[in-house]
Amino acid sequence: MTYFNILTPALILDRNKLDKNIDRMTNRFKSLGVNLRPHLKTSKAIDVARRAVAGNFGGITVSTFREVEYFAQNGLSDMTLAACIAPARLNQAAAFRAKRIDLKILIDHPSVAHSIANHSGEHRVLIEMDCGEHRTGVTPGSSKLMEIANILNAAPNVEIAGVLTHAGHSYRCRTADQMADIADQERNTVVDAANSLRAAGMECPIVSVGSTPTALYARHLNGVTEARPGVYMFGDLFQAGIGSCTMDDIALTVLTTVIAHQEGENQLLIDAGGLALSKDRSTRVLEDDCAFGLVCDVNTGNVIDGLKVASVHQEHGQISSSSIINFSKYPIGTQFRIMTNHSCITASGYDRYNVIDGTHPHPAAEINVWKRCNGW
Amino acid sequence: MTYFNILTPALILDRNKLDKNIDRMTNRFKSLGVNLRPHLKTSKAIDVARRAVAGNFGGITVSTFREVEYFAQNGLSDMTLAACIAPARLNQAAAFRAKRIDLKILIDHPSVAHSIANHSGEHRVLIEMDCGEHRTGVTPGSSKLMEIANILNAAPNVEIAGVLTHAGHSYRCRTADQMADIADQERNTVVDAANSLRAAGMECPIVSVGSTPTALYARHLNGVTEARPGVYMFGDLFQAGIGSCTMDDIALTVLTTVIAHQEGENQLLIDAGGLALSKDRSTRVLEDDCAFGLVCDVNTGNVIDGLKVASVHQEHGQISSSSIINFSKYPIGTQFRIMTNHSCITASGYDRYNVIDGTHPHPAAEINVWKRCNGW
Repeated sequence: MTYFNILTPALILDRNKLDKNIDRMTNRFKSLGVNLRPHLKTSKAIDVARRAVAGNFGGITVSTFREVEYFAQNGLSDMTLAACIAPARLNQAAAFRAKRIDLKILIDHPSVAHSIANHSGEHRVLIEMDCGEHRTGVTPGSSKLMEIANILNAAPNVEIAGVLTHAGHSYRCRTADQMADIADQERNTVVDAANSLRAAGMECPIVSVGSTPTALYARHLNGVTEARPGVYMFGDLFQAGIGSCTMDDIALTVLTTVIAHQEGENQLLIDAGGLALSKDRSTRVLEDDCAFGLVCDVNTGNVIDGLKVASVHQEHGQISSSSIINFSKYPIGTQFRIMTNHSCITASGYDRYNVIDGTHPHPAAEINVWKRCNGW
Repeated sequence: MTYFNILTPALILDRNKLDKNIDRMTNRFKSLGVNLRPHLKTSKAIDVARRAVAGNFGGITVSTFREVEYFAQNGLSDMTLAACIAPARLNQAAAFRAKRIDLKILIDHPSVAHSIANHSGEHRVLIEMDCGEHRTGVTPGSSKLMEIANILNAAPNVEIAGVLTHAGHSYRCRTADQMADIADQERNTVVDAANSLRAAGMECPIVSVGSTPTALYARHLNGVTEARPGVYMFGDLFQAGIGSCTMDDIALTVLTTVIAHQEGENQLLIDAGGLALSKDRSTRVLEDDCAFGLVCDVNTGNVIDGLKVASVHQEHGQISSSSIINFSKYPIGTQFRIMTNHSCITASGYDRYNVIDGTHPHPAAEINVWKRCNGW
């Protein structure tokens, strides 16, 4: 009855889909003539990173110092930490650079520029621009850009690595045209910022944009040197919902087991709850609200029509159906695979991926384990 | 400026509040004359477990096999795994019993009773009853209870440990009276089930109820032998919102650092996002919706009026305010402590607690590290 000889809940990663997703983005950036610096915050796994950098220039993007440490231990050295640094982390950043890790840190405020200039270590710094998401970053046209750049430029221990922006607001788009417009805005913001630095006689080697939707839908990236999409490798229901991938591209699922029947509520209970699936509800705002996840056949990986993880407790998931469930079809012990809203968040509950080759969907297929890092 | 010499984000556990919360529940069950079997699914930490069992009979409740393994390695042996077992886990359960771990497993279906009866290992089994939550458990009055009991009773390798229920629907209550009513329902359900087994000549040593609200508000627990509350140790904003604890009882917070200012949006950006705080939004349904968390002064631990974590990205939290933020009051590098919706879920993002003694809120105060286990 059980397909996978794996105790549940567990992450299943379809290597075939992963490789297709990676190839598509790598080829896309080759045709754009821009470096791809894949963001590893989703997978946090060296085995995924090696595939993602293959055929590209070798640099990666990370979201935590734990990732810097982990990927450095595993032989990668060109990294951008794409979240504004807390000043208390400067010692840590300098220590990595002293160990020949080319870590680039991110800031958006003059006070942190002063902290870096006054720090005892050496640093390479990217200045973050706000291209419309209004999360972090210097507003285009603000005098802060040159204020920060001048502080950094005057400091002998600091090299300005360039400018960076993240079009997180592309996640609010629902059409390719909207995403292409945001991509224009994203590109213009950093290219203008780079031109400002260069006009002041400073170098700006890196001009970096982010986000999977804008990477896929940008009309061109003239003036941009690199891009940092990440979630394209795994995909998820939210990305499928906004058109960044198809349902068939989703490479990451959660393997789970039916542990109870609740006939009175027309529900199947599974051993994947809030910790195993995450409490992310990104698809709530989309046309197709997937609740906490869609239920897939364990063999084919195809969505079973009508079944959804309607709600979660810590270790219980409640699958409901749009029609009356035939409980004898899903006896206790049945395995499902669940597609979730947001792969980055779901994966964070696990320390490993169980990797299958989707082209050989057979119980005896080899399953590899790829480890991932977590925490900060 | 920084209070704690800890890199952020990080969990802060106030041992003083923890001990008060534990003492209150331990004393409550002494006065009720019922065993307290604390649920360790929140803390997943042996240092918390030792405090929670002190003065009680020594048994614990867990939610995963990883917890069984971890607590067994740390010297605890009387455990109830309070989620229906996946049949593929029976080998694992039997292996623990063979190592003299008194693991009690939970089922609610005759098919699993057959799997256990036919299994090569020895098992002690609790039968789950549904007292109104309608998640898992046998419906009161259903013939399934005796069907399961008869299968188990006839199997030479199986001992019926008793009956168990969980009044998760007490979380929907908003008054002490409502909670006491649910506690009556919870108690009646398992006591009736135990009487049915005994009337059929079977033993039913354990009659177990759950949930922090019913543990606190039950009018009496006559006929019940033990209770399994858990979240009372740490508390959280949801528990405070429904009256299971006060704001001052909340022992767990997330230490975070301001990493950017977004004046245009009247927001402070912190380095605690969806992974560090969790995406749990339990308080959404309460009168006081706390968004993704309330912001506390790092020294006093007191809530700063008007500040809330309005939204989260993977590694960014966006603090908004009901009034205009005085940004100079919170320079980049400022530390806050964040109270979150649901301690069980927030804690799962971390592998350790930084433990402070709340009665000595001083920068030089000793900070102990308590490890926790994660995963399955």
